[in-house]
Amino acid sequence: MSAEHLQIGLLGFGTVGRGVYRILTGNGESVKQKIGAGVTIKKILVRNMDKDRGIDVGPAKFTTRVEDIIDDPEISIVVEVMGGTEPTLDYVSRALQNGKSVVTANKDMIAAHGKQLFELSEANNADLLFEASVAGGIPIIRPLKQCLAANRISQVIGIINGTTNYMLTKMTEEGSDFDDVLREAQAKGYAEADPTADIEGYDAARKLAILASIAFNSRIGLDDVYVEGITRITAADIAYAKELNYTIKLLGIAKETADGIEARVHPTLIPHHHPLAAVNDVYNAIFVTGDAVGDTMFYGQGAGELPTASAVTADIMDAARDLLRSVPGIISCTCYEEKPVKDMGATLCKYYIRLNVADRPGVLASIAYAFGDKEVSLASVLQKQTDTKNAEIVLVTHLVREQNMQEALEIIKHLSSVNEVSNIIRVEGE
Amino acid sequence: MSAEHLQIGLLGFGTVGRGVYRILTGNGESVKQKIGAGVTIKKILVRNMDKDRGIDVGPAKFTTRVEDIIDDPEISIVVEVMGGTEPTLDYVSRALQNGKSVVTANKDMIAAHGKQLFELSEANNADLLFEASVAGGIPIIRPLKQCLAANRISQVIGIINGTTNYMLTKMTEEGSDFDDVLREAQAKGYAEADPTADIEGYDAARKLAILASIAFNSRIGLDDVYVEGITRITAADIAYAKELNYTIKLLGIAKETADGIEARVHPTLIPHHHPLAAVNDVYNAIFVTGDAVGDTMFYGQGAGELPTASAVTADIMDAARDLLRSVPGIISCTCYEEKPVKDMGATLCKYYIRLNVADRPGVLASIAYAFGDKEVSLASVLQKQTDTKNAEIVLVTHLVREQNMQEALEIIKHLSSVNEVSNIIRVEGE
Repeated sequence: MSAEHLQIGLLGFGTVGRGVYRILTGNGESVKQKIGAGVTIKKILVRNMDKDRGIDVGPAKFTTRVEDIIDDPEISIVVEVMGGTEPTLDYVSRALQNGKSVVTANKDMIAAHGKQLFELSEANNADLLFEASVAGGIPIIRPLKQCLAANRISQVIGIINGTTNYMLTKMTEEGSDFDDVLREAQAKGYAEADPTADIEGYDAARKLAILASIAFNSRIGLDDVYVEGITRITAADIAYAKELNYTIKLLGIAKETADGIEARVHPTLIPHHHPLAAVNDVYNAIFVTGDAVGDTMFYGQGAGELPTASAVTADIMDAARDLLRSVPGIISCTCYEEKPVKDMGATLCKYYIRLNVADRPGVLASIAYAFGDKEVSLASVLQKQTDTKNAEIVLVTHLVREQNMQEALEIIKHLSSVNEVSNIIRVEGE
Repeated sequence: MSAEHLQIGLLGFGTVGRGVYRILTGNGESVKQKIGAGVTIKKILVRNMDKDRGIDVGPAKFTTRVEDIIDDPEISIVVEVMGGTEPTLDYVSRALQNGKSVVTANKDMIAAHGKQLFELSEANNADLLFEASVAGGIPIIRPLKQCLAANRISQVIGIINGTTNYMLTKMTEEGSDFDDVLREAQAKGYAEADPTADIEGYDAARKLAILASIAFNSRIGLDDVYVEGITRITAADIAYAKELNYTIKLLGIAKETADGIEARVHPTLIPHHHPLAAVNDVYNAIFVTGDAVGDTMFYGQGAGELPTASAVTADIMDAARDLLRSVPGIISCTCYEEKPVKDMGATLCKYYIRLNVADRPGVLASIAYAFGDKEVSLASVLQKQTDTKNAEIVLVTHLVREQNMQEALEIIKHLSSVNEVSNIIRVEGE
């Protein structure tokens, strides 16, 4: 490896790959100044050599053989921007085994296979950097691992999916319905043709698993994360929330509590004055509370070609610095503990509950009795008539055990005066 | 230096020093796990050995001789938390000359003497880390130097003084006057007995000089920063701003433009929907725009014992990691360019102008004529009668050269119908 120049290989040349190419081409001189060496993309793995990519790279850089990158002794950093886990996991593992530093934007692979990859990176003394895997361009992995390292982190709460934040923002600003907003988001390219991973919360769950693992120094798997999407949020819920001075956001919430780690993704009412409530459209933000630093928040674009490539390129520069000083792996896996994960039934939350009931005397009393019996204490009650026979009741509780809430709802659901439990949404940030 | 243990010395044991002591004591085990070595405070420089500091450190750690720290071969990291530049600059210089890594929270020293200190740190191959010098606990120096390193930064806009942000928040929420709010801030300990450095903007200017130097890779001195404090902001300005959908904040603004770098601290109207508008009380936030990442923001507590100590301790951990791997100085000074600083008269801004005028026909026309003559184009006009004879006119301009604005005001000030130019405040963030 020459001290004046580092060669890197890209696995994949989709949106993010092209962004990395553009940054290294456009800002190459300042990259060189900052790390003390130039960085050149030597090879790019693609499936189809002839595809028009709308960017002039020159055919000589492309290859369809992964070995031209992961086995090339001149390439010291492998940048994985192809996504998925198959065959990506195999490629990245082999690159690490060959002692290459690896930079990846792949949340699926890190969330599902982080442990084995970090073991490989440590065994081979190679950097494995993944800033872009969570919240695109927003610096959050390195701030958690370094800048906030002196803290015992108590919670990480994030808006970490741009698609659903765009949809909820539109619903809030325009009073529109879920289905209309989804169609609009798809038309604008913010939501995919199959929007399941976004609207059902799975994308956010992968990012939360990564954030929680770093924040609490203990590996949190995807299976440890409770997941609930936004498909049941209606214009009515948004309007009631507003009336009660709340905004509805899809949040990834991870907390360390005395009886274990909580990790959950679900729609959430947060008070208007909370910093996360002002995070709108496709923007992401991660709110972190530490015992020394107090509350902090990191805000920016969570996706997109150049924002994500900004994070990937910063990781390339860090990996390059480490290689030039011969200290790859200086900051490695930080999961040195094994903390228990709390059962969802044991979590404490406040709840917003919307009920459709028969509008007759004694109904509220029977509902309040059922809640009281399960130790669910109510903080506020709104009642609105919907037609001559029925009314809508919106309740907000104090802190209550999830298990008790579910038991109370089971009883309320079967009360003769209750037509429907229309929705139940957790409340945070008070 | 033992691989299992690092010894550090503190210069000073005021608020921040005690915070560092508390964190290293309370979170010592996790610090050790994360960096692979324990960190112990060996000596603390104080002026008075016998003072009761409300914390049980044991007298053996205290010394009044700086040589016991900066000349002790067992001490590898010197942590400067005494503040000021006299004799601090001398102590820190000698520590660097002795090859010690230095961590400092001292914005005055870095803003005024950064160049010579970074030269010393490079010559002696020693880390010089200063995350805590700007915005207390908020990670911003390292994010700028590393996480956003792939970007060409176009602007940094920050609420970087907690005292004035607290005061402006109170004035906004309660409609109170400047003097009342200042007294309240002093009573709560948020403002000092002599509040000059805060309310006149000097504190923010020092931090902005540091931020701009890093963001634009070119040293910006204190003298390069235009400074205007908040003492002329009245309850009336706050109320008019609100009516026009703006919030008034004291901002530090640094921009790279085609004809040089702008660096200015002044009260500013920003639109309600701007992320900085929601940053209230003593909280700080830094809004950074890069060509790849787009808009990002870093939010948190900009001062206080533990938040500031969180940043200092993170720097200690980074310095320790670098020492343990024998790579101190891996990220050093990034001012590798010498960009010109723009003359204030050449900056382009929008302006809010409040005038007290005689309430008679033709007044607005003469004012509008004077502005038009100097190519100042108006975006909005509000007029309110104040008594039977006088009226208040509030104008907001489009983008205009500062020099033209000053010339127009000079003429308007002398119009017979104008009683007073009551205030002029710049507008940003649209």
